[in-house]
Amino acid sequence: MKVLVLNAGSSSMKFTLFAMTNEKVLAKGLVERVGTETPHLIYSRHDDLKQEFDPPVKNHTDALRSICDILVDREAGVIKDLSEVQAIGHRVVHGGERFTKPALVNANVKDAIRDCFALAPLHNPANLDGIKACETIFPGVPNIAVFDTAFHQSMPPEAYLYAVPYDLYTKYSIRRYGFHGTSHHFVAIATGKYLNKPFEQMQLITCHLGNGCSMAAISNGSVIDTSMGMTPLEGLVMGTRCGDIDPAVVLRLIELGQGRNQIDTILNKKSGLLGVAGIGSSDMRDIIAAEKNGDQQALRARRMFTRRVVKYIGSYYALLGGADAIIFTGGIGEWSSYVRWKIISRLACLGITIDKKKNDDTQGKAGIISTPESKTAVVVMPTNEELMIARSVAASISHSAPVK
Amino acid sequence: MKVLVLNAGSSSMKFTLFAMTNEKVLAKGLVERVGTETPHLIYSRHDDLKQEFDPPVKNHTDALRSICDILVDREAGVIKDLSEVQAIGHRVVHGGERFTKPALVNANVKDAIRDCFALAPLHNPANLDGIKACETIFPGVPNIAVFDTAFHQSMPPEAYLYAVPYDLYTKYSIRRYGFHGTSHHFVAIATGKYLNKPFEQMQLITCHLGNGCSMAAISNGSVIDTSMGMTPLEGLVMGTRCGDIDPAVVLRLIELGQGRNQIDTILNKKSGLLGVAGIGSSDMRDIIAAEKNGDQQALRARRMFTRRVVKYIGSYYALLGGADAIIFTGGIGEWSSYVRWKIISRLACLGITIDKKKNDDTQGKAGIISTPESKTAVVVMPTNEELMIARSVAASISHSAPVK
Repeated sequence: MKVLVLNAGSSSMKFTLFAMTNEKVLAKGLVERVGTETPHLIYSRHDDLKQEFDPPVKNHTDALRSICDILVDREAGVIKDLSEVQAIGHRVVHGGERFTKPALVNANVKDAIRDCFALAPLHNPANLDGIKACETIFPGVPNIAVFDTAFHQSMPPEAYLYAVPYDLYTKYSIRRYGFHGTSHHFVAIATGKYLNKPFEQMQLITCHLGNGCSMAAISNGSVIDTSMGMTPLEGLVMGTRCGDIDPAVVLRLIELGQGRNQIDTILNKKSGLLGVAGIGSSDMRDIIAAEKNGDQQALRARRMFTRRVVKYIGSYYALLGGADAIIFTGGIGEWSSYVRWKIISRLACLGITIDKKKNDDTQGKAGIISTPESKTAVVVMPTNEELMIARSVAASISHSAPVK
Repeated sequence: MKVLVLNAGSSSMKFTLFAMTNEKVLAKGLVERVGTETPHLIYSRHDDLKQEFDPPVKNHTDALRSICDILVDREAGVIKDLSEVQAIGHRVVHGGERFTKPALVNANVKDAIRDCFALAPLHNPANLDGIKACETIFPGVPNIAVFDTAFHQSMPPEAYLYAVPYDLYTKYSIRRYGFHGTSHHFVAIATGKYLNKPFEQMQLITCHLGNGCSMAAISNGSVIDTSMGMTPLEGLVMGTRCGDIDPAVVLRLIELGQGRNQIDTILNKKSGLLGVAGIGSSDMRDIIAAEKNGDQQALRARRMFTRRVVKYIGSYYALLGGADAIIFTGGIGEWSSYVRWKIISRLACLGITIDKKKNDDTQGKAGIISTPESKTAVVVMPTNEELMIARSVAASISHSAPVK
């Protein structure tokens, strides 16, 4: 079975084509700057052939067409005919409360994705466009929507409700949803396999630290809390997002004359590491380089970042009643042994100890970085959201019934 | 030495007169509904004599005059002459970054209190009015301002900064300040005495749970983190305040047509236990009664409240690298053994265990409620902000120099 995985953003479309028999990536790439004057397609094949194009791409349907062209290309392609694609998986950011697992797309599912436009105004419309493009170009091929929010839907009400008037929840769907669910789910399962214990029998703290950052507390396979909230703005310090702040800061910004959209931009695009360090970068590698060069603001930004993770680990450890493993994933989580060190070396009070050498040696690959004596295992586990989506698609298709 | 302690609110003035030789309360009470048609004075003397009046009170100076009248009253009073009041302590909510300890009031200090009006628009103007009333009625008597924020000013930048653009801090003073500092400080010192160990040598987690709720992590006498932020809105679930939420919730409320002041009212006055439980009360006693009657919303509200405290304890435990004591104070913290039980019984993973009988027996008085085996002592310690202010005043006067 060949499964195409699509991640349609507001001005981009990422794709990965999997052969599911061995979970091999046949080809992947992206179209960027969709809808602009300078669209661009980057393609890479399993054998490391790379090609780039500037196809005329006005919308997501055009983008998908250009992707299909290269996939079936005689020279550079990997399939003979589009009919080899048996199912398509779509990353959809917001599934609201309705979707607790992947869904075979039909008219109702599309309506539900549309119902969540207000909750994810930048993402869900593009995600739906990606689905519609597939319906046009792959008529009859099943589309499976895989939601960033789904894995978190097991949270109890006391975790997902905010302490605001209850009718804000019932009337306007204001609650914690959580995001990065596909990644948290993937690394939780993978860590279970890696430690040779079903993840449904473990207490896990997953730390997805990338440009966006979130954590989850997973008890016996079910998320009981997560750091992102109604939107991906809440929780950890991120590349450009503020994470947790006093909500009165927003009120203060209004007093200072800022409008809703300006505040949105400040908190989502100009905050986080970018806003605190002030070195013109939101990239943790640049922050650490500046810190090591003696930049005090960069040091402060890095400390805020790692300290926030320490606080959430403490919180989730208490909520879970202890943890079998703490898992690091995402660009920073997989690659920055320095950030991991700064976090884990503060957890001796929980009986958690890090092996410095193992930590330094584990970069971009799976590994246990805690000492054998550590009460909780600390694990680095590369995430693979595309593969998780492809697996969900394969499972959905083999069950061959709409999920929910 | 006799010290008068004043807490001037927007429409009230609370007072306590102390004899500092034995820290005895000679008299206390309040004037409520200052500036309304129906002002009211409630007075109670050390010997339990109680009196109530309806004096004509248009402003804080009138309120103070009516208080002075009863204090020197031949029948009901406790002093012969106002000249017996040697110093006056004022609770001031916001001292910004400038005040790390109590300050002898002079023109500069008044300017600084005024500079913080924007940060505490409901409290600081009234606090300053209280000071001015004393300058009129007690000419030449020193006024000492004791700030709610002062004890928290030891936080490191990575704790007090938000991950927003750095110039929001430098230009507009947007940062975490923390509140209830006088209470956290008082119970930390008192717990040190109670446990026979200087609080400057302990790692403490203080939980002030009243109508407003906040927590602090105190390392060797210095606050390293606290749950309230730029304003008293952030952090724990409170009687009517939301505590931590996704800042994007505020943006969503703007989209839904709410103005700045409406949102302020929703989050500060209509949220918390009141907003979630929906039983028309923000009082934890009512919430628990409803919960025990099977009310599901009340159960949910209580669970949100206790769960949030558990999360903060976990956070602060990790930040502190372990804790010598967790301290409960405030109306709920001192009196609700049920709430304490629901919190502490979740902390077995930290080696913290509660003694059910001791917990049930400790109501409104100091006591250790953990088992002897508990790795961390859990202590109930009644707060006394007025006494803390009076002590600060006595100390400031005996040093007889302006503090900072």
